[in-house]
Amino acid sequence: MNRISIAELLVSDNYLHEVTVKGWVRTFRSNRFIALNDGSTIKNIQCVIDFEKTDPSIIKRITTGAALSITGLLAESVGAGQSVEIQVSKIEVLGDSNPEKYPIQPKKHSFEFLREQAHLRIRTNTFSAVMRLRSALSFAIHDYFTKNGFYNVHTPIITGSDAEGAGEMFRVSTLNPMNPPKNEAGEIDFTQDFFGKETNLTVSGQLEAETYAMALGKVYTFGPTFRAENSNTSRHLAEFWMIEPEVAFNNLDANMDLAEDFIKSVLKYILENCKDDLDFLNQRFLDEEKTKPANQRSEMSLLEKLNFVIENNFKRVSYTEAIEILKNSKPNKKKKFQYLITEWGADLQSEHERFLVETHFKCPVILFDYPAKIKAFYMRLNEDGKTVRAMDVLFPGIGEIVGGSQREERLDVLLEKIKTFEIDEKELWWYLDTRRFGTAIHSGFGLGFERLVQFATGMGNIRDVIPFPRTPQNAEF
Amino acid sequence: MNRISIAELLVSDNYLHEVTVKGWVRTFRSNRFIALNDGSTIKNIQCVIDFEKTDPSIIKRITTGAALSITGLLAESVGAGQSVEIQVSKIEVLGDSNPEKYPIQPKKHSFEFLREQAHLRIRTNTFSAVMRLRSALSFAIHDYFTKNGFYNVHTPIITGSDAEGAGEMFRVSTLNPMNPPKNEAGEIDFTQDFFGKETNLTVSGQLEAETYAMALGKVYTFGPTFRAENSNTSRHLAEFWMIEPEVAFNNLDANMDLAEDFIKSVLKYILENCKDDLDFLNQRFLDEEKTKPANQRSEMSLLEKLNFVIENNFKRVSYTEAIEILKNSKPNKKKKFQYLITEWGADLQSEHERFLVETHFKCPVILFDYPAKIKAFYMRLNEDGKTVRAMDVLFPGIGEIVGGSQREERLDVLLEKIKTFEIDEKELWWYLDTRRFGTAIHSGFGLGFERLVQFATGMGNIRDVIPFPRTPQNAEF
Repeated sequence: MNRISIAELLVSDNYLHEVTVKGWVRTFRSNRFIALNDGSTIKNIQCVIDFEKTDPSIIKRITTGAALSITGLLAESVGAGQSVEIQVSKIEVLGDSNPEKYPIQPKKHSFEFLREQAHLRIRTNTFSAVMRLRSALSFAIHDYFTKNGFYNVHTPIITGSDAEGAGEMFRVSTLNPMNPPKNEAGEIDFTQDFFGKETNLTVSGQLEAETYAMALGKVYTFGPTFRAENSNTSRHLAEFWMIEPEVAFNNLDANMDLAEDFIKSVLKYILENCKDDLDFLNQRFLDEEKTKPANQRSEMSLLEKLNFVIENNFKRVSYTEAIEILKNSKPNKKKKFQYLITEWGADLQSEHERFLVETHFKCPVILFDYPAKIKAFYMRLNEDGKTVRAMDVLFPGIGEIVGGSQREERLDVLLEKIKTFEIDEKELWWYLDTRRFGTAIHSGFGLGFERLVQFATGMGNIRDVIPFPRTPQNAEF
Repeated sequence: MNRISIAELLVSDNYLHEVTVKGWVRTFRSNRFIALNDGSTIKNIQCVIDFEKTDPSIIKRITTGAALSITGLLAESVGAGQSVEIQVSKIEVLGDSNPEKYPIQPKKHSFEFLREQAHLRIRTNTFSAVMRLRSALSFAIHDYFTKNGFYNVHTPIITGSDAEGAGEMFRVSTLNPMNPPKNEAGEIDFTQDFFGKETNLTVSGQLEAETYAMALGKVYTFGPTFRAENSNTSRHLAEFWMIEPEVAFNNLDANMDLAEDFIKSVLKYILENCKDDLDFLNQRFLDEEKTKPANQRSEMSLLEKLNFVIENNFKRVSYTEAIEILKNSKPNKKKKFQYLITEWGADLQSEHERFLVETHFKCPVILFDYPAKIKAFYMRLNEDGKTVRAMDVLFPGIGEIVGGSQREERLDVLLEKIKTFEIDEKELWWYLDTRRFGTAIHSGFGLGFERLVQFATGMGNIRDVIPFPRTPQNAEF
């Protein structure tokens, strides 16, 4: 008979009908109660076996991690914590799991240990909940943009252009590293490489997405991006996924509206569609907070944080205002900041962003109109000649979750900027074409997907919200 | 006033209200009729200006490619081909387009020329229709899997494992290519590379996806994959997107059912949601077919092909049956095949696949149970000891669109296979763990996204269905 998923079963009231489920043993109590999980939900189905009537050689093989096929009658459960259970009539061990060798024991493992077992950690409650939420957020993003008239664009992963300057890049090559061809100047002859030039992994699809926005109107990318930076922190990955919407005719205000509406919508989606996983992660978060000193505990639970973001307006603050607030702040006056704010023009560090979001405003903040000197070449220069139409969305506990801007649409200003930034204009001939032919104002932003998943799941380390994290010295699996 | 998209406007009957649209000029006729497009639909909105009352300096700037903001009254159109038009009261040129320099002229350009203008070709009817369809197909895929209880998994792009063996790989490195560190044996010392080992771009996320299927039950990947093969054909890309579902407890029959249902569902989605773009591409396809000799023309239009696939069962044929059919076929007997089929065990070439699909069965075909020797190590060995539970879905005009299999779930058989294939067992310790702990039968497949987009749009060259194609000697943009 066809198997039914546990998620379907748990909402079924088809009592006293025979059902077959297949899944993996989470626990086996009193030689009688199997908690079986098939990944369709965080909840297990309780399967009750008749110890007397069951072959002892089968009983012995019911161990944590074993794969079983179970057939029996669906019944209302008398036990606490579940509505239905299965009264087992047939049990088949599909795959054994030696309890002495299975790395995932029915106890609490550290996240550090589980990172080394990334192929098995998905069999735990925490990681299955996190990854189901990651999947739901991914769908919510596609759903939001589709419903709002955006087109998804797959911008290239391998790029011959390194003009964006968002960070250090990984080189992609098929040349023999032991003996690469050299040109007359004695340099590596990349004309003999696969693409006939030096190529790298993309740091952003924005520039390509802009060319599509200037034809399709509203577009977004959702793909992997890369940074070859030696950052061993809980906030950085060498390979991560990014969402980059880009909209023709949008100014910075419309861009801020989009970012806020977008984030609220996808969080609302998971609150409506992922209740069980969120309830579990909410409890996990609370339990973890309890282990911290009282003054370091979060003021809100995970669910409260999600609802708070959905229900409150993001505070919009200009860079200039923010500098004034920071200059006069207690930690600045008492020299508690590592980088003291003394004048306009300073680049904000994460300690400053955290102060603004977590201490001063106590809500998500959108900072805008940054000094031109500390932002990228493509951002639109304001009439003051010294600030650009940049924006960063800052989240409590996460820091920068979105970075975006209105783009410089004026060819002459952009060319001047490119010169100042010492970028090779020829590299960007195609990007400049969008300003040569039918230019118009447009805006967009990038959202780091893993930061969003962190916020939505309450996970502290970014390595725990992506299936197989890539970090310095680590490309296992 | 806020702009409205042309897609919304064309289904509006809000006559005699003032509206503002922004977009790019496609054509300007008789100094009076502007066809404006904003990318939201393939259709243009006709904007009628009063020549007498319009500033001549503005009229001069209304050229193909220029960006305009137009305000006026929405009116029922008297002209053919559109239901509504705008009677222009205000016109603003946002960005000029010098008609002598703009590469996209209002005439037919060759696809070869347009590939060199990949940042601007999206402003043509054909490419905007193709890329909107690509986006719709992408959404349809996420929608199908989400509705059917699958979880999306982002498998790693940079991989330290090269065991899959699906093709040549691109090396990813941050070592200085001019002077890479060497170890004592005189080889490149990859322990000093970013990840502490040699890394490449992934050729498939299957092995990692399998580990997730063995916990979440049903999963799928949708991400970029890479082949460093020097194939300069209309069917190959060095960077392409692949969809790889993987389902625990599915056997090969269920895998075939899934592939067929999945393909039919996403094609149905675009027939229901992308009528205008498909109508345009259908006409383009018919026009192109007319330029071919009569005996080479397709028997069906694009729309007929899509409906045919949706309405007919895919023919399921074993490899052994297929060999018999091919052995006795006319082209084999008359030695018209480049590779003659003489015996069981031969690898099928695309000429054979095309004969089966286009001449013999005249419908999509699923070939299954291939000789073990010509298929990958992870495919499940049949009881006959010489065939494996592999399947390929073959499509008319496209060839292989899906390749999949039931996976070998038995640890001992798999270990034997790995030895035969001379793969380093240690590389796959984590993959083998899924067979060590709670193994179960499972199946999956890979679908080349661009092949699907080709089929859905009728485009002949795979370089014309991805925004910025990567091929040997080409990584522009």
